[in-house]
Amino acid sequence: MASSYKLIYFNARGKAEHIRFIFAYAGIDYEDVRITKEQWSERKEGMPFGMVPALEIDGKLVGQSNAIARYLAKQYGLAGKDEWESLQCDMLVDTLSDLKQVLYQYRMETDPIKKEEKKQMLLRETIPFFMGKFEKVVAENNGYSVGDALTWADFVFAVSLENFELIFGNNSLERYPSLRALKEKVFNIPSIQDWVNNRPVTDF
Amino acid sequence: MASSYKLIYFNARGKAEHIRFIFAYAGIDYEDVRITKEQWSERKEGMPFGMVPALEIDGKLVGQSNAIARYLAKQYGLAGKDEWESLQCDMLVDTLSDLKQVLYQYRMETDPIKKEEKKQMLLRETIPFFMGKFEKVVAENNGYSVGDALTWADFVFAVSLENFELIFGNNSLERYPSLRALKEKVFNIPSIQDWVNNRPVTDF
Repeated sequence: MASSYKLIYFNARGKAEHIRFIFAYAGIDYEDVRITKEQWSERKEGMPFGMVPALEIDGKLVGQSNAIARYLAKQYGLAGKDEWESLQCDMLVDTLSDLKQVLYQYRMETDPIKKEEKKQMLLRETIPFFMGKFEKVVAENNGYSVGDALTWADFVFAVSLENFELIFGNNSLERYPSLRALKEKVFNIPSIQDWVNNRPVTDF
Repeated sequence: MASSYKLIYFNARGKAEHIRFIFAYAGIDYEDVRITKEQWSERKEGMPFGMVPALEIDGKLVGQSNAIARYLAKQYGLAGKDEWESLQCDMLVDTLSDLKQVLYQYRMETDPIKKEEKKQMLLRETIPFFMGKFEKVVAENNGYSVGDALTWADFVFAVSLENFELIFGNNSLERYPSLRALKEKVFNIPSIQDWVNNRPVTDF
């Protein structure tokens, strides 16, 4: 029997969008619950460890964005063709999370001098370093992040690269042609395209 | 044929110790390479995304602490009895990482006023909140973090709780009897005990 899914998050792409991409790609019905800021204080207590995104699977709640995505990816054939490829997916997703963590620390920095230092470090070193490595991986895998077929890591990349272009400008992926092509390939999958054209419009 | 493993990290428990616990428990031979600070600048370039821990599996290098641990856990029967339990392991491990990230941000704070604020927030709210939830999970699972048998999540807890006691004192787990019992249960597994008695002594 098919599972019943309810995805709970804010009205944002954020840490839930790659999960929504998996659902769209796999053609799975789910309830896309979007909590407002006003609702959050009363909903927080019921969420796993007080956090979202959370997924209700047949009435049982689970948390953690990438744990949820990995679980669904396995169900719907998006976790690589074997354990070795699953490991590559996990490695790339966690490395992207590390990069996003550094970006988050920059955004949260309140000291203007330290913020400028962090910005320079990001622009000169951290971002080119990671993006260059990611570009190489995707180029070597003929346009996929792992193996020679689509995985949930590609969705994580596509969603992250969309934000990258929003932050750094439409031309910011020119230096990373394989990453740009990967992003476009994912966004051009008909089921994904359909989701993207119809999803709620949000800033992030 | 058995795989050949080389684990590369610093001379520390840090982000590698739960991987070492998996090897010890599964009785797997591996090379426990510990890079010195002096060696790091020349070794960094060869590591996946310039980071450790890294694991060389039959000559192929992979990175990311929890990606490595999850892969090995699956090989050696420590990832739960089904995909649902694997998801619970992943959720708990990532939630623990979130908590460690907050602790890290506290340690890195250089502004003394903000540091004190963060400390009070941690001691009054964040730590009791997460530890209380973890305690409840382990109590409900009859002493395991997931299901009714040992998983790699238990190793992540044991290693983290050892550090918790180092930071907050030997009595700091008194309020969390199930977590303390879980930590002791893991450390009393003969193969783990043997590793712990013979591992290099390091601060963290």
